[in-house]
Amino acid sequence: MHALEMIGTHPEVRSVPVHGVDALAACVEACFDCAQTCTACADACLGEEGLEDLRRCIRLNLDCAALCSAAGEIASRRTHPNLALLKQVLEVCAEACRICGAECARHAGHHEHCGICRNACDACELACRRAIEAAGLN
Amino acid sequence: MHALEMIGTHPEVRSVPVHGVDALAACVEACFDCAQTCTACADACLGEEGLEDLRRCIRLNLDCAALCSAAGEIASRRTHPNLALLKQVLEVCAEACRICGAECARHAGHHEHCGICRNACDACELACRRAIEAAGLN
Amino acid sequence: MHALEMIGTHPEVRSVPVHGVDALAACVEACFDCAQTCTACADACLGEEGLEDLRRCIRLNLDCAALCSAAGEIASRRTHPNLALLKQVLEVCAEACRICGAECARHAGHHEHCGICRNACDACELACRRAIEAAGLN
Amino acid sequence: MHALEMIGTHPEVRSVPVHGVDALAACVEACFDCAQTCTACADACLGEEGLEDLRRCIRLNLDCAALCSAAGEIASRRTHPNLALLKQVLEVCAEACRICGAECARHAGHHEHCGICRNACDACELACRRAIEAAGLN
Repeated sequence: MHALEMIGTHPEVRSVPVHGVDALAACVEACFDCAQTCTACADACLGEEGLEDLRRCIRLNLDCAALCSAAGEIASRRTHPNLALLKQVLEVCAEACRICGAECARHAGHHEHCGICRNACDACELACRRAIEAAGLN
Repeated sequence: MHALEMIGTHPEVRSVPVHGVDALAACVEACFDCAQTCTACADACLGEEGLEDLRRCIRLNLDCAALCSAAGEIASRRTHPNLALLKQVLEVCAEACRICGAECARHAGHHEHCGICRNACDACELACRRAIEAAGLN
Repeated sequence: MHALEMIGTHPEVRSVPVHGVDALAACVEACFDCAQTCTACADACLGEEGLEDLRRCIRLNLDCAALCSAAGEIASRRTHPNLALLKQVLEVCAEACRICGAECARHAGHHEHCGICRNACDACELACRRAIEAAGLN
Repeated sequence: MHALEMIGTHPEVRSVPVHGVDALAACVEACFDCAQTCTACADACLGEEGLEDLRRCIRLNLDCAALCSAAGEIASRRTHPNLALLKQVLEVCAEACRICGAECARHAGHHEHCGICRNACDACELACRRAIEAAGLN
């Protein structure tokens, strides 16, 4: 993805310290990746046998995809950023990833896509928390 | 919109007390309305003279639209709901509406669309807070 | 919703004939309504017994919600509009509504939410086609 | 991203020829990448001097991001796919990328972010067209 490349070209970023920027770009990429993975996982679950046991997983995947999408979009913006809001957004995104990842972990033994999705959620949760810290949002 | 009509037909809702459900449906509708209004306001600002003074307004409108979209989507789901997450989602949505509404209010004297948008944001913030309370999420 | 109110305040619209504008605003509102209804229907189906027979319905509802969201967002913008692209967007949205509405109709006898959703999809398909015509896009 | 990895784990895909699947996964990844890049470009443009000359670019970036998001989401789903609709979705996405890429190209000499975005749009347009062809959708 182009998130890190793009962030360095923003007029408000061209002179800021790179540390927080790297973590934020990594967070953006993790969010978009997780949004896609959760969308695909919800759909794969929908196609499986034993669908009744996957209702909660599908539900959490859909919510997580929606939040990662919104968080990735908002974190991509550097013009007049509202840091307090960004922190709140990344926190709720991290929480959604935590919950979804835990549910996917329950099914990972039976469904490979849930294992991959659990990894994407874990990575996104971590990336969100790192971005909150590195960008001085806490 | 059909949010209230739909919520009554959900298998997990057909037997629950109507109070929290009404507030939640009203919140869903306010979120979708606000997402559209903020999208339209960001675009109207983009077409105005004196665009430099509207950068922050456009930015906040885009963020608010993204969060209202995600919140409206998540609050529309009643299958295996995670109430703690829903509360957090509605809180960040309410906060985005508060911030965006305040910025739109600054421009409402010059731009009618900002006045309408300020109203939609105020209504959505209120609807989110009411839903948190009525659905026993606090 | 505020779509019609907002559209009249746009700098590029304040002087254009109202006919096409009314149809476009109605289309925007139908899109946001349909996006919410399809999201809710997919979720209600997910909570029903006999879930295996509802896989296709859930799938189409999720796709339709995504397209109505995108179409409603794009049709809300009047700054430097690209009419050829808008037409294509409304056409694919109408088609998604047609397909989703037909699938929901198959289940409407058993599931009230599918009946409501079929109506929302029918209304949105019609609104999109009217907007294409009234705004001179065909 | 995990699109290719995920697509191979889907119950409906585990036995299909890999050619069309690779192209579709690549298309999904290009869509998510482009959605992020266009979101970032619209925001970078919003922060630049000479904003009046970038109105159209911002507008097209926002539309393109919305369509790439929807297309990437829909193309991620393999349960009961509607291939005719998928083709139409990828075609409108490719067209949005073509138009947005052309506008970004106009500003690429002055704004590095527009040059990166032009590349992402070009890549996404190509990936969509390849997916239409490779998956036998034309």
